[in-house]
Amino acid sequence: MPSFTLLAGKEHRGEQMLIRCAVYKGGQKFADIDAGDIHLYVDQPDCFVWVALFEPDAAALDQMRREFNLHPLAIEDARKGLQRAKFEDYGESLFTVAHIIEDVEGELRVGEVDIFAGRNYVLSVRSRSEKGFQEVRTRSEAEPHLLRHGSGYVLYALLDAVVDRYFPILDSLESELEVVEERIFANTSPRANIEALYAIKQKLLTLKHAVAPLLDAMSNLTGTRVPVICVGLQEYFRDISDHLQRLNQMIETARETVSTAISVNLSMITLQESETMKRLAAYAALVAVPTLIAGIYGMNFDDMPELRWKYGYVVTLGFMVVIDAYLFYRFRRTKWL
Amino acid sequence: MPSFTLLAGKEHRGEQMLIRCAVYKGGQKFADIDAGDIHLYVDQPDCFVWVALFEPDAAALDQMRREFNLHPLAIEDARKGLQRAKFEDYGESLFTVAHIIEDVEGELRVGEVDIFAGRNYVLSVRSRSEKGFQEVRTRSEAEPHLLRHGSGYVLYALLDAVVDRYFPILDSLESELEVVEERIFANTSPRANIEALYAIKQKLLTLKHAVAPLLDAMSNLTGTRVPVICVGLQEYFRDISDHLQRLNQMIETARETVSTAISVNLSMITLQESETMKRLAAYAALVAVPTLIAGIYGMNFDDMPELRWKYGYVVTLGFMVVIDAYLFYRFRRTKWL
Amino acid sequence: MPSFTLLAGKEHRGEQMLIRCAVYKGGQKFADIDAGDIHLYVDQPDCFVWVALFEPDAAALDQMRREFNLHPLAIEDARKGLQRAKFEDYGESLFTVAHIIEDVEGELRVGEVDIFAGRNYVLSVRSRSEKGFQEVRTRSEAEPHLLRHGSGYVLYALLDAVVDRYFPILDSLESELEVVEERIFANTSPRANIEALYAIKQKLLTLKHAVAPLLDAMSNLTGTRVPVICVGLQEYFRDISDHLQRLNQMIETARETVSTAISVNLSMITLQESETMKRLAAYAALVAVPTLIAGIYGMNFDDMPELRWKYGYVVTLGFMVVIDAYLFYRFRRTKWL
Amino acid sequence: MPSFTLLAGKEHRGEQMLIRCAVYKGGQKFADIDAGDIHLYVDQPDCFVWVALFEPDAAALDQMRREFNLHPLAIEDARKGLQRAKFEDYGESLFTVAHIIEDVEGELRVGEVDIFAGRNYVLSVRSRSEKGFQEVRTRSEAEPHLLRHGSGYVLYALLDAVVDRYFPILDSLESELEVVEERIFANTSPRANIEALYAIKQKLLTLKHAVAPLLDAMSNLTGTRVPVICVGLQEYFRDISDHLQRLNQMIETARETVSTAISVNLSMITLQESETMKRLAAYAALVAVPTLIAGIYGMNFDDMPELRWKYGYVVTLGFMVVIDAYLFYRFRRTKWL
Amino acid sequence: MPSFTLLAGKEHRGEQMLIRCAVYKGGQKFADIDAGDIHLYVDQPDCFVWVALFEPDAAALDQMRREFNLHPLAIEDARKGLQRAKFEDYGESLFTVAHIIEDVEGELRVGEVDIFAGRNYVLSVRSRSEKGFQEVRTRSEAEPHLLRHGSGYVLYALLDAVVDRYFPILDSLESELEVVEERIFANTSPRANIEALYAIKQKLLTLKHAVAPLLDAMSNLTGTRVPVICVGLQEYFRDISDHLQRLNQMIETARETVSTAISVNLSMITLQESETMKRLAAYAALVAVPTLIAGIYGMNFDDMPELRWKYGYVVTLGFMVVIDAYLFYRFRRTKWL
Repeated sequence: MPSFTLLAGKEHRGEQMLIRCAVYKGGQKFADIDAGDIHLYVDQPDCFVWVALFEPDAAALDQMRREFNLHPLAIEDARKGLQRAKFEDYGESLFTVAHIIEDVEGELRVGEVDIFAGRNYVLSVRSRSEKGFQEVRTRSEAEPHLLRHGSGYVLYALLDAVVDRYFPILDSLESELEVVEERIFANTSPRANIEALYAIKQKLLTLKHAVAPLLDAMSNLTGTRVPVICVGLQEYFRDISDHLQRLNQMIETARETVSTAISVNLSMITLQESETMKRLAAYAALVAVPTLIAGIYGMNFDDMPELRWKYGYVVTLGFMVVIDAYLFYRFRRTKWL
Repeated sequence: MPSFTLLAGKEHRGEQMLIRCAVYKGGQKFADIDAGDIHLYVDQPDCFVWVALFEPDAAALDQMRREFNLHPLAIEDARKGLQRAKFEDYGESLFTVAHIIEDVEGELRVGEVDIFAGRNYVLSVRSRSEKGFQEVRTRSEAEPHLLRHGSGYVLYALLDAVVDRYFPILDSLESELEVVEERIFANTSPRANIEALYAIKQKLLTLKHAVAPLLDAMSNLTGTRVPVICVGLQEYFRDISDHLQRLNQMIETARETVSTAISVNLSMITLQESETMKRLAAYAALVAVPTLIAGIYGMNFDDMPELRWKYGYVVTLGFMVVIDAYLFYRFRRTKWL
Repeated sequence: MPSFTLLAGKEHRGEQMLIRCAVYKGGQKFADIDAGDIHLYVDQPDCFVWVALFEPDAAALDQMRREFNLHPLAIEDARKGLQRAKFEDYGESLFTVAHIIEDVEGELRVGEVDIFAGRNYVLSVRSRSEKGFQEVRTRSEAEPHLLRHGSGYVLYALLDAVVDRYFPILDSLESELEVVEERIFANTSPRANIEALYAIKQKLLTLKHAVAPLLDAMSNLTGTRVPVICVGLQEYFRDISDHLQRLNQMIETARETVSTAISVNLSMITLQESETMKRLAAYAALVAVPTLIAGIYGMNFDDMPELRWKYGYVVTLGFMVVIDAYLFYRFRRTKWL
Repeated sequence: MPSFTLLAGKEHRGEQMLIRCAVYKGGQKFADIDAGDIHLYVDQPDCFVWVALFEPDAAALDQMRREFNLHPLAIEDARKGLQRAKFEDYGESLFTVAHIIEDVEGELRVGEVDIFAGRNYVLSVRSRSEKGFQEVRTRSEAEPHLLRHGSGYVLYALLDAVVDRYFPILDSLESELEVVEERIFANTSPRANIEALYAIKQKLLTLKHAVAPLLDAMSNLTGTRVPVICVGLQEYFRDISDHLQRLNQMIETARETVSTAISVNLSMITLQESETMKRLAAYAALVAVPTLIAGIYGMNFDDMPELRWKYGYVVTLGFMVVIDAYLFYRFRRTKWL
Repeated sequence: MPSFTLLAGKEHRGEQMLIRCAVYKGGQKFADIDAGDIHLYVDQPDCFVWVALFEPDAAALDQMRREFNLHPLAIEDARKGLQRAKFEDYGESLFTVAHIIEDVEGELRVGEVDIFAGRNYVLSVRSRSEKGFQEVRTRSEAEPHLLRHGSGYVLYALLDAVVDRYFPILDSLESELEVVEERIFANTSPRANIEALYAIKQKLLTLKHAVAPLLDAMSNLTGTRVPVICVGLQEYFRDISDHLQRLNQMIETARETVSTAISVNLSMITLQESETMKRLAAYAALVAVPTLIAGIYGMNFDDMPELRWKYGYVVTLGFMVVIDAYLFYRFRRTKWL
């Protein structure tokens, strides 16, 4: 890999802002080039430059702006980050923002890839994400008949990779949801269930906000009037759009399921409270009735024949046991105990 | 039935990937042919080939791709399965995905049929579904005046069969729902009701995701600018669209009913809790009041005339019974007992 | 009324499939004709045939199909019944399905009228409904200046009658709802209220599914490009559309009211539970405190001066009464009792 | 004011059907005329007639129909009343229905004004409303430069007055809502709060059904293709539309607030129930523990040294007090009391 | 700064209605001018006037109306204030209303800025807001290459500043929400949580009503047919639109989160009630069982051997302790205590 004077700042700090910068001709890699030499290639008619940056600083972005003649507002967005997923057509260049969602120890981390695509260049700027897109480059280089489509195909390949990474995230959310469902109906850990449902709902919103705006954006790339660099690739972008629609539908289903689960969980808690109350009442009866009997024979009337009877005490105790046994049997039968 | 060298793999394992492959001319079956001979017929102007596959492997799909010159992205979808129901126009061929929903021991299993239709061929690929579409072929062959419309009519007949199978599924869900409704108002098995409502809601979502995207897709086949192979069949596809709209409406009604039932069920549980509490309180009163009386006559004052009275004990017991009888009567009248 | 050989089957069973079959010329009745003679009139330029059937069998419908040259798919729909309300344009004929809703002992019964309308004929097929449309015919015959518009006007008159019958149904639902509202706030019969709200919601859904699709259908008859037989009648169909929109709005209001009422009812139940709990607790206190006092004087200490006091017992009883009176006063003041 | 033979019926009953009937020329009042003379002015090119009726009978409406040549369906709507707010273009005349909402002792009464507007006339028919639109006429007559726009301007002025009257109604609903909010969080009168929220919701629905359809209707008067009598006044009608949108937004906000308030109120009730339960339990403990102690010293064992002790009784009483004081302190600290 | 005779009224009261009035030429400030001299510059082709007012009185607005020839309806809106955020095209002038939202001691205060923009002037009228837009002027003057775009750019810069100020407001709401979330799951201060959630919901509605109509308005400034003064600035207005969409999405997410939090909070309250009930029941059992035992040995049977036994009392007390210890252990194990 060549050296990059201008982009070297971060590299010195042990990080790397410039991931790769290469020129492609006729679907095949022509050369790795220096970031400072981009302008030498970007105007050649039969090739395109593919640059990948990772969390570049303002200087690096500014260099890119000059090399590729990018629009200041788009560069500003890329510099600030935390953009909404979107697609913007600046006439000669397209600017696409997509969210990268990664599961970091149970939390969803939202990163971002900003893609600038022009007639003969693609610049991808990745932020707050661990996994890069090197495998997209590798796979693309292995399919020259597709890479021959130029920068539009690279745009497709990058977006396709971003979207494909949403599926395992959503799958794991659906698995979490199934676990909670089972626990709800098994009546275990209601507190944890509520927290889990709340967390899943939040994560689904995160995914939703990655998927929905991108789906809107795709409509610009699949119709009959698409930007010139995407012409002939509509079926590929429609494929991404189809994946996004599937994701969207799965997210909607999961959200509705979570909502239902929350209200069902409340029903279960209320129901269990009701059942607990009955159980408590039954036990209370088992104590209160003998207490009443004991109270009666604790009265101090002079003339209480039972008190004088030799077996009075034993029979009374027995009566207490019998009446409790009967009550117990009755409560069992009505499922209160 | 002829032999199929290329598709024979699965057959050897006791399964059959190729269900049927036949050529039709002027609305009538011309011949069963070998899958390898498709290219001999597919370019003849006055006939069409109708192939039905069941869970084909990658090799079989690849053979089909070559025989019919299908788009790689569509074949990729058919190979992977688990697609969203959809309709895609690839210019000279149409690619339709529809969900097959089967009730397997109370669970809904979602299968899939992928239909490739071109000017003179139809290829259906069925997966994860038990019941095939042989009866569609039989019925179509019995109506040559309709089958004369060609591959468009076969596409219609297959989709019509898929959609017709949704109705009994939905009917049985509606019956389940009615059973639960009755139990809710009869106040029996609240726990089972909650689980059942949750399950019905999930199944409705499954059906919804089969019906709704297909309904969207149909709009491409019923307007004034329809793909060439469907021209003249708009009224038939509109009929499918109409069925789907009816299903959609029934599903929406059922979903809203389930939501209402869940909240009504919560009301009933809360109400019953409230009623139980009253009943408990009434019984508690029946015990507590005599206990108080017994307590009073258990006091040790020197000067308590009642204690010295000969009938004190009996009268006190009688008073307890009378007061409880009165309380019981009052509680009955206010419906607490 | 003439005899009808072909349609006679049902008549023999004591029912009547053919209600009426007449020819109209220049806005006035020309003649009642035999169903088998329809083809003699249907091609005459200056008149139209108006046929009304009630639950015809397949043979009768097939005869109609031949007489009027109707589309098999539309006839199929009429034969099967249970269609979604809809409007279908078959080029030279219009096919309209509308739901007839009748209140049969508190339950809503959904019947159906299927109307085929061509340049010079109208065929109405009514099913599962008690009340016919004879009064529409009578009224139309009394207004020749309107009937002169031809089959389009008859279509209008029939639909107008169907839609007008929705209003009393909805009115009675609104009255039911008001009764329930009052009971909710009067805190009476919560269980019956829940059931009633659920039932009203279901009935509203039934009405909704009669009204909403018909409203959609009307948009085909009120724009600038309407079917030829409806030209010049747009203002009349707009009037139906307006009624449907009013119904739709009333239904939406009622549905939202029911939803609010369900949640308000739950609040009332919970609130009443809470109030009952307080009342119970107050009564419990009225019993528990004297019980404690009695318990204290039931202790067996040798040295309890009160026990020896002559008025100890009476004073203690008095104290119990006083303390309970005080508690009662306090509870009253805080509205617990 | 001239006399009106034909419209005199109601006047005799002490009411007045004809409020005013005047001719305007060049933005200024030309003359008050007799209702029977309308046809003399309505065809003059440079003036317009402005008639205001209040709950006219069928005869009066029929007279108007003939004088202005109005469409029978529109007259029918005006006669029946209880229409949905709407706007209908009958080619040469416009028919507008708007709801008049008046607060009559805390209840919202829905009246109606039906406005027929043609090239040179405006007819307003007001029903079920106390306050008329005389002040609109007065204000309009004071601004001849605006009134010169003709009947379109009168239509604007009337609708503007109707819409302006919605604001104080909505403001008072918002005030009611704020009062309820405060009471909810102050935890007072939960029952009254529920009733109030329910009533506010119903009133908001009433307002909604006045505002929303009128807002839809306005879109016909603000675009580029507006009815000829409204040409040049689009900015005025846009102003009404803007007010309606503001009302609509305020209503939506209020409805959402009511919904939230209902669920928040339920939470508060449940929470208070929970807190009450704790308080009750605390008091129960304060009684139950001394009762247990008293019970223990009420046992009849021969050998209970405390009973023989001189200070046994006093110390026991003291112990009861101490233990209750301790419990009281603990309950206070955990906020149960 | 020059003096302003006509606008001087408020200045005398210690306030300042005219913040600034300056002429710009070729992107640079040409001169501060007197408000009365505006008409001298506003017709010069190569410059534009930028006026900023703060809560002007009717006279000042009227002066402006004359200087700039503004539409009376727009001026009327500016005078009344409390408008919906909106954008109105009056042909030669644009009228934009945007809400300014400021956090004043925890309450959101809704101010307003009304911007009139014509070919060569911009007039901003700010009300009920503390912070002005001086820094927008300063920044704009520092970027002459942008200010050269004229009044359209000033409109952009003002709106951009308004919208940017929404972000910190929303951020602080999101922080509040996170605090509440934590407290909900930590089960602390449920009452405060409910109040906080309600307050956040209300504030979100306030923000929503600032953002949503402005977002609608922006669509008029970003398409292909934009007002002439905004031509060439579409990308800038699209940037605002993009920010508004992001805000809108964040608000929707927050609103949904609040709704979920309210229902989750109710679940937690109910759950805690249920847990409290169990704890109470457990403690009740610890008192009730010994009370029963004491009651039994308080009975007055002649023949109760235990009573005569020397260690009867101590053993009984011991038994009470043992049985309570056992119960305590059991309740602990089932997590009731």
